Amino acid sequence: MIVKNLADHAKFSPEKMAKADIASGETLFAGLNCFEPGQQHAAHTHAGQDKLYVVLEGDAEIQVGDETQLVSTGGGAFAPSGVMHSVRNCGDKRLIVLAVLAPPPNK
Amino acid sequence: MIVKNLADHAKFSPEKMAKADIASGETLFAGLNCFEPGQQHAAHTHAGQDKLYVVLEGDAEIQVGDETQLVSTGGGAFAPSGVMHSVRNCGDKRLIVLAVLAPPPNK
Repeated sequence: MIVKNLADHAKFSPEKMAKADIASGETLFAGLNCFEPGQQHAAHTHAGQDKLYVVLEGDAEIQVGDETQLVSTGGGAFAPSGVMHSVRNCGDKRLIVLAVLAPPPNK
Repeated sequence: MIVKNLADHAKFSPEKMAKADIASGETLFAGLNCFEPGQQHAAHTHAGQDKLYVVLEGDAEIQVGDETQLVSTGGGAFAPSGVMHSVRNCGDKRLIVLAVLAPPPNK
């Protein structure tokens, strides 16, 4: 499956961060986390699941473990299994982050 | 681990596509595939391993199975386990593609 522009699949909700699936295989899942300004995905961990973030559009404050940084388009973050992580839209535009998880959720 | 600009980690070789590791966990690996103009990663498959491509910079001709498309910055492709895929730099600038594999190679 080839996607010309990943951000075109974004979905937003006025209530909270919205998700949009991109691809799901046996060992890897990819989806978009879509944030209106001020929205966040609160700190959480996954046991037995690594996660990679790639910022596609906007300005994110990303936390991984003890590290917190402002990351914009083209930046990313890796949260290994068991390490706390969060994302917040700290900009004044919409934020679209690609999240890649292995293994996929609910498998 | 947080990376301000993934493409800053790119490495190039005049002989062939070069690779640069970004992150490696228990279940997920991320690295850069870096192509000078005209260089390619020939068609290949991985058994039991899904791969996601994200184009960070440049113009890629990506093949997945029977599908071939030109994909530029912000585009991507998903090659499930066992499905043939290839990437070629069809532009006149350097091409940097993020490749995410699960499980990691050699695990």
